[in-house]
Amino acid sequence: MPRGVNISLIGTGKVAMHLAPALQQAGHHVIQIIGRNEVPAKDIAQVSDAAWSSDFSSLSPQAELVILAVSDSAIAEVSEKLPFGNFAIVHVSGATPIASLARFVNHGVLYFLQSFVPHKKPDFAQMPVLINGSNEVSLSLIRNVAESLSEKVSAVSDHQREAVHVAAVFANNFSNHMLTLAEDILRENNMNLDVLKPLIFESTERLRVANPSDIQTGPAIRGDEQTIKKHVELLNNAEKKDLYERISKSIQDRYREKL
Amino acid sequence: MPRGVNISLIGTGKVAMHLAPALQQAGHHVIQIIGRNEVPAKDIAQVSDAAWSSDFSSLSPQAELVILAVSDSAIAEVSEKLPFGNFAIVHVSGATPIASLARFVNHGVLYFLQSFVPHKKPDFAQMPVLINGSNEVSLSLIRNVAESLSEKVSAVSDHQREAVHVAAVFANNFSNHMLTLAEDILRENNMNLDVLKPLIFESTERLRVANPSDIQTGPAIRGDEQTIKKHVELLNNAEKKDLYERISKSIQDRYREKL
Repeated sequence: MPRGVNISLIGTGKVAMHLAPALQQAGHHVIQIIGRNEVPAKDIAQVSDAAWSSDFSSLSPQAELVILAVSDSAIAEVSEKLPFGNFAIVHVSGATPIASLARFVNHGVLYFLQSFVPHKKPDFAQMPVLINGSNEVSLSLIRNVAESLSEKVSAVSDHQREAVHVAAVFANNFSNHMLTLAEDILRENNMNLDVLKPLIFESTERLRVANPSDIQTGPAIRGDEQTIKKHVELLNNAEKKDLYERISKSIQDRYREKL
Repeated sequence: MPRGVNISLIGTGKVAMHLAPALQQAGHHVIQIIGRNEVPAKDIAQVSDAAWSSDFSSLSPQAELVILAVSDSAIAEVSEKLPFGNFAIVHVSGATPIASLARFVNHGVLYFLQSFVPHKKPDFAQMPVLINGSNEVSLSLIRNVAESLSEKVSAVSDHQREAVHVAAVFANNFSNHMLTLAEDILRENNMNLDVLKPLIFESTERLRVANPSDIQTGPAIRGDEQTIKKHVELLNNAEKKDLYERISKSIQDRYREKL
């Protein structure tokens, strides 16, 4: 096991809540929790046997790594309240450039690719972690901490991290919206999504061994224009009709050579 | 257990392959497999200890239920080759009207809502089955067989079954295409979908206890126009830009009151 790192954790949200005990368990020393909100800061500090404070200027001089686990919009404001010192500082945001912390020489990113929920302990070991560092020293420290938590650490550029963020919107937000549109269609016909859930779970299971581009099915990839036309007629709403046609066209364009 | 039904199974595809042993195990008698292709017909017959034939006119007079497990496009042609008799006949299609079998007095639909793959035994017990029948006698027989296989049988109209089919295109085909677009974006940036898989699996897990409309996240539902604009600029392809904007708008319209 690599040596334990002295860590000050800033923030009291879901990431901080789950990260503090995971860091302790990985052999690091969470020496301090700093958060504007006293109650959650105390709670997190107690679990990790750390000190706590609501004063950002009280950052411990023992800190080797400062983890800024605050919302994207608070990164600039909070980082400006911190004193300089002999530490590296990271944010945990997928969408914020590394340069947002450039006032510190040693800075970087520690982005956990999972959505955290309060009452469910996340599986850090299998969680992809995207890291970046302003120089070799910072990157090496950040990698040390990331790899002590997860088996899936990758060093990526700002541009790559942004691409992952856009890809996650398609893979997570937009695919969930497709399920919501299905839910709406079923509800309008006195049914509910339960009827499709086994199919949804089975398709997701297949992603363990296949790429989505290898398992695309349905009328669009089959070039079944008759079913597409029938489905568009059946939809009773201009927006759903338009989306059905647009996404079907996107599928047909994507696999044109196969049609 | 309800009494066993004498069943002639027509077709040698994935549905017939999995259905024959499941029907036997549920206490029915698969007395005959009829299929144009000799080898798979013999294989399926052997597993279920049934006779086999490639001649549609050789339908057994003992058959009480004829299951037409053939592709949508073959339903009309095959059903016209069958002799009349004292049986009910069903197709297994999600998209074909019940009336496609109206030349037989007792007819109906037995639609299994799952995608079958050759080498994986499907879980019939948890598989939604949508049934329909031309009259009480047929419907009762079809329900008897369906309920001997599955705990999730619903009698639905043609219109409802069509709605499920459209909803499945959104929930299954379109959501898979969203993952494919994510896969494309990642590949263009020298990464792959593995980085998003834990997030995808976690989101699907949540559907066991929540509706997709209750767990929508992302820049669109947050009304985060700055991120939406940044993402659209980052996408290097007119079709992806257009889809990103159209689906984000659909999300914002769907949840307008919440914004």
